[in-house]
Amino acid sequence: MTKHHPDTPSGERPTGPSRRRLLGTAGAAGAAGLVLGAAGGALGTAAATEPPTDLATVGRSRVPFHGAHQPGIVEPAQAHGHLIAFDLAADAGRKEAAALLRRWSRTAEALMAGETPSSRLHDTGIALDAGPSSLTVTFGFGRSFFGRTGLVAHRPAALEPLPPFSSDALDPRRSDGDLWIQIGADDALVAFHALRALQREADGTARVRWQMNGFNRSPGATAGPRTPRNLMGQIDGTNNPKETDEDFERRVFVPAGGDPAWMAGGSYAVLRRIRMLLDDWERTPLAEQEKVLGRRKSDGAPLSGGSETTPVDLEKRNADGDLAIAADAHVRVSAPETNGGAAMLRRSFSYHDGFRDDGAPDAGLLFIAWQADPLKGFVPVQRKLDRGDALSRFIRHEASALFAVPGGAGEGEYVGQRLLEG
Amino acid sequence: MTKHHPDTPSGERPTGPSRRRLLGTAGAAGAAGLVLGAAGGALGTAAATEPPTDLATVGRSRVPFHGAHQPGIVEPAQAHGHLIAFDLAADAGRKEAAALLRRWSRTAEALMAGETPSSRLHDTGIALDAGPSSLTVTFGFGRSFFGRTGLVAHRPAALEPLPPFSSDALDPRRSDGDLWIQIGADDALVAFHALRALQREADGTARVRWQMNGFNRSPGATAGPRTPRNLMGQIDGTNNPKETDEDFERRVFVPAGGDPAWMAGGSYAVLRRIRMLLDDWERTPLAEQEKVLGRRKSDGAPLSGGSETTPVDLEKRNADGDLAIAADAHVRVSAPETNGGAAMLRRSFSYHDGFRDDGAPDAGLLFIAWQADPLKGFVPVQRKLDRGDALSRFIRHEASALFAVPGGAGEGEYVGQRLLEG
Ligand code: HEM
Ligand code: HEM
Repeated sequence: MTKHHPDTPSGERPTGPSRRRLLGTAGAAGAAGLVLGAAGGALGTAAATEPPTDLATVGRSRVPFHGAHQPGIVEPAQAHGHLIAFDLAADAGRKEAAALLRRWSRTAEALMAGETPSSRLHDTGIALDAGPSSLTVTFGFGRSFFGRTGLVAHRPAALEPLPPFSSDALDPRRSDGDLWIQIGADDALVAFHALRALQREADGTARVRWQMNGFNRSPGATAGPRTPRNLMGQIDGTNNPKETDEDFERRVFVPAGGDPAWMAGGSYAVLRRIRMLLDDWERTPLAEQEKVLGRRKSDGAPLSGGSETTPVDLEKRNADGDLAIAADAHVRVSAPETNGGAAMLRRSFSYHDGFRDDGAPDAGLLFIAWQADPLKGFVPVQRKLDRGDALSRFIRHEASALFAVPGGAGEGEYVGQRLLEG
Repeated sequence: MTKHHPDTPSGERPTGPSRRRLLGTAGAAGAAGLVLGAAGGALGTAAATEPPTDLATVGRSRVPFHGAHQPGIVEPAQAHGHLIAFDLAADAGRKEAAALLRRWSRTAEALMAGETPSSRLHDTGIALDAGPSSLTVTFGFGRSFFGRTGLVAHRPAALEPLPPFSSDALDPRRSDGDLWIQIGADDALVAFHALRALQREADGTARVRWQMNGFNRSPGATAGPRTPRNLMGQIDGTNNPKETDEDFERRVFVPAGGDPAWMAGGSYAVLRRIRMLLDDWERTPLAEQEKVLGRRKSDGAPLSGGSETTPVDLEKRNADGDLAIAADAHVRVSAPETNGGAAMLRRSFSYHDGFRDDGAPDAGLLFIAWQADPLKGFVPVQRKLDRGDALSRFIRHEASALFAVPGGAGEGEYVGQRLLEG
């Protein structure tokens, strides 16, 4: 049952590392037909139970649950995202948390395979007909989790609270949390179904602290691998570390033998809900917008010349002697070169929650940065951006969280087991 | 550059009338290649200006702006929807409203063709790379519009306020409005781009009264034409009037020679923001859920037997003598047969705005019903549902609006011109 991939051989999904998805699908699907080079269009066939047999390309695409790393980090960000943070119930401790992570892992594994989870409650059926649709579920632990579960001795030093930044306007009710789940899928109902199923499993053990919804371009809206745009209209993600970079693993994931040991293969997620002052932004002339960023809006090319993928030349001067990329341009101030090599993998969702009471759109970026150590990734870069980024005028950081995201679960294991039963 | 349609010959879009989209696309694209039978996958080529040439299937799909009816009524509901209502500024009257509708129509036409609108302001660029993505823009007038513009004499009788219903819990700040725009697109950034562009055109003439976001399944998540599911997990839309029905036009659109004359080819949209009490619903056993509706959840088949498309048999009794479809089942109480033939075209979006302060999900249906006369469509049916629908226990009507949606603009005309210059 080989199907034609709908478009270019390089697939319809936005650009980003795709190796894991392909290999993973091949592993999970065994001898199933795998369209090589068709990232995101791989034809994972039915596993134990029977997902619908007539799924289309988007629905059929499947990311494996098991692996060295959790899913939802290196795969391209999906069209729909849900972020949800929980606090443990007052009477829940380490034992209850372990049982919850076991239930969550089992549910996530079933959902990501397009199967109906064997829940304590019957299934809602919302995701029927649509297959896994590239669903990923990622679990994280916040700093407060360790105190509540008597695990302070195992708390990573990297979970020290983020320092305050001068431009912060953070809402504590939408920040932090004991536990965090990131859900992504290319179908809105598949994503919502997963959110409800996972939330139900938490009943009695943890309650929702906050929840946010995000989105990205739909698969098939653009051809070929395309870097996503954000709601300012910028191509956003170009200079992310690439899975093919020699130092990619080292930058994004905690190495085996790191500290604490249970975080081997894990990563730290920094989440910032950043509202965009779109009324101001959209009134700003195009040339000024491009100067603020340091890249062209139409195609993402650096103002130092070339195309989207041309390396940024921070020294380049225009004929008039001015720096081609201004001193306060976002890409200069955030670049690894100007931050002692500090790098992170940005994998964000846009958000839009209608209009605020003041008439401005409540819209912006659910900025998510992944790194082996936030003190060598997000923190130094944000410290610099906070002081000198031309973009600051147009954005407000409104919520913040930092989570320790353990390595992926092996077969028969649940996420966080090495911490909770270590 | 013929491309293979990603999946079945019947296309990837959810079921629903597609004739207009196909014919429309063929018309708009002239001699362009048209994949027959591939609803929503038709390859509309570039019009006057130059949209990107390498769009994928979803991005390329285009709905014509001009026609007897406005777009966004008979086409399948898209993956993303924005509803936005405006009130005219205190100093704006008929003249300013006419200028606004002219600007809006010009902008909508450009956006739906995948072109950059020639706005008073420069374009945000958010939709670049993605083509029209089945964008539709639909304009409507609320009852209050006619008083503010001195057009009360032309106000349709059908715009009488909807009667109150016993189960209403309506929020006036999210109800009604002078003007309404419905935006739908299969890409989130294309939809958001249109929202911003149209809102900017209103600056100084009208201000946002309320705005809501909705969604449906992504194209490609399911194969073939598939009726959408809602957030209760039900297949929703099966027994909608079909464009092929002999009385479809008469039920949905105001005929030529109707009253008022300027509404010829138009329709009335009833919008109800209906929250679902999902915690209660999901605790209800499957058999009980199915009894509440009168259809099976898995495949949408009526409880009187057959498959999704089998006509509902309201007389059928089970072996035990009970009615197969309960006396208070939603499909019985809402069926045209039990409402003197009252029918409407339901074309809804799901919504999910996170969690409420009480911990319940703020999620449900942006129910939109289209009909030639609300007094022969929505009103009698809702009156009956209000008293006797088993579903009532699980839903709350939280906002309501009724709009007169004029016929489509001819070439060189703007939407509403026959009213505003009549
Ligand atoms: C709403 C807020 C933000 C917007 C709209 C934004 C947008 C962008 C864009 C368009 C680029 C250029 C394309 C690319 O290389 O991805 C970029 C680059 C970058 N941004 Fe941001 N950004 C935001 C916030 C942040 C924050 C909070 C950080 C980290 C603290 C950050 C770190 C970076 C980094 C490291 C780069 C790559 C620089 C390079 O190596 O060339 N950004 N951003
Ligand atoms: C959240 C609220 C609602 C939900 C979840 C819902 C769901 C459904 C479902 C699943 C069906 C069966 C499949 C189909 O034929 O489409 C249906 C049928 C129908 N509903 Fe609703 N509905 C809701 C509200 C309403 C309202 C407010 C009205 C109108 C006042 C309405 C009118 C109808 C009609 C006319 C039918 C077709 C009945 C037939 O001819 O078989 N519904 N609805």
